[in-house]
Amino acid sequence: MSDPCIICVAITGSVPTQADNPAVPVTISEQVESTHAAYEAGASIAHCHVRDDEGKPTSDPERFARLKEGIEKHCPDMIVQLSTGGRSGAGRERGGMLPLSPDMASLSVGSNNFPTRVYENSPDLVDWLCSQMLEYNVKPEIEAFDLSHIIQATRLQKAGKLKGPLYVQFVMGVQNAMIADERVFDFYIETLKRFAPDAQWCGAGIGRHQIEVNEWCIRKGGHTRT
Amino acid sequence: MSDPCIICVAITGSVPTQADNPAVPVTISEQVESTHAAYEAGASIAHCHVRDDEGKPTSDPERFARLKEGIEKHCPDMIVQLSTGGRSGAGRERGGMLPLSPDMASLSVGSNNFPTRVYENSPDLVDWLCSQMLEYNVKPEIEAFDLSHIIQATRLQKAGKLKGPLYVQFVMGVQNAMIADERVFDFYIETLKRFAPDAQWCGAGIGRHQIEVNEWCIRKGGHTRT
Ligand SMILES: [Zn+2]
Ligand SMILES: [Zn+2]
Ligand SMILES: [Zn+2]
Ligand SMILES: [Zn+2]
Repeated sequence: MSDPCIICVAITGSVPTQADNPAVPVTISEQVESTHAAYEAGASIAHCHVRDDEGKPTSDPERFARLKEGIEKHCPDMIVQLSTGGRSGAGRERGGMLPLSPDMASLSVGSNNFPTRVYENSPDLVDWLCSQMLEYNVKPEIEAFDLSHIIQATRLQKAGKLKGPLYVQFVMGVQNAMIADERVFDFYIETLKRFAPDAQWCGAGIGRHQIEVNEWCIRKGGHTRT
Repeated sequence: MSDPCIICVAITGSVPTQADNPAVPVTISEQVESTHAAYEAGASIAHCHVRDDEGKPTSDPERFARLKEGIEKHCPDMIVQLSTGGRSGAGRERGGMLPLSPDMASLSVGSNNFPTRVYENSPDLVDWLCSQMLEYNVKPEIEAFDLSHIIQATRLQKAGKLKGPLYVQFVMGVQNAMIADERVFDFYIETLKRFAPDAQWCGAGIGRHQIEVNEWCIRKGGHTRT
């Protein structure tokens, strides 16, 4: 790859709480502080979730606005990517922060199982999120939890619902979705290149798979997320 | 493959109605009649859906019982496979016919998108369907709508929730799920063999992809469904 390796940092996921791990940054100012540390260490994309006052994941546009503002102020040039993931809200709520026109936002284009539930991304919701991203000029990071999601993203692009070049994240190690498997990872890359030769990709290994998947990313020419 | 090619016939899917195509058999006696014709032509598995009086898909165990009885009477040795698919009911209703102990039943082990909705198979529901199939000695046909479903089935087997050897159907050509793609088809076979060397597989191409996918099945040593 001729472009420099992008390091993407997910400061606060949607799952951990401070009860699990007091080191997890949860307030906006804690999040800005950790993002700044990652920025100094070379990370170039901040993948952002926000929490409500009880520490629960939320899609509240006002909180996203404050986090975005804080990162932009303290980490110039850092790419701000807001999560439209389904743990933080239901239905169109999940895209309520897109009018903030962040640089990027995560986007799921299919449904799959999570450890204890169905991660629902109905065709209608996907179409609506795509249309909002076009309207507010937000570049999606496609969250691919399975092989068909990669192909589906390229079809949405061909249908004019997503703007290229695509940026796809291969998510592995989520229980009941795709396992962390290097042969599958290679096939993901091959498939993406076959349907969208100009696409870029990164990988995310969940939990204990994080380091392993990061190593594959670096070795195979993708971007990584930590 | 040393075992003879199994031809599987899906007489009445869950989608078409007689309004779409008057030739679609919908009543139990029409279904038994068409299954018998397929049986004479060499089909060995009957994949069965049933309809209510309005022609809508249902999971009604009583209707399944009559269809099973009719096929067993008219088509000796034919393998009866009842559908637990999600178009015919919601939640545990979908497994209401398993106490009939059919030879086989279809089983989805993950969730995915269908043309206009989410095909929901929550981890809890999957576990429950597995437990019912063990209890009533029903061999599942795993309906794989995406790559992770294949791997998930092998994990359920390793966890003792499914009895081997697995029988997996690769379903292709469903809008918003997996497209009909030969390279993916080959990777499906490779992946299944890697995680479950004793597994058997078949392929189903939906709609206009039917003949294409059948040809791959025959050429690559799988079973086919028509
Ligand atoms: Zn990333
Ligand atoms: Zn996220
Ligand atoms: Zn079959
Ligand atoms: Zn079916």
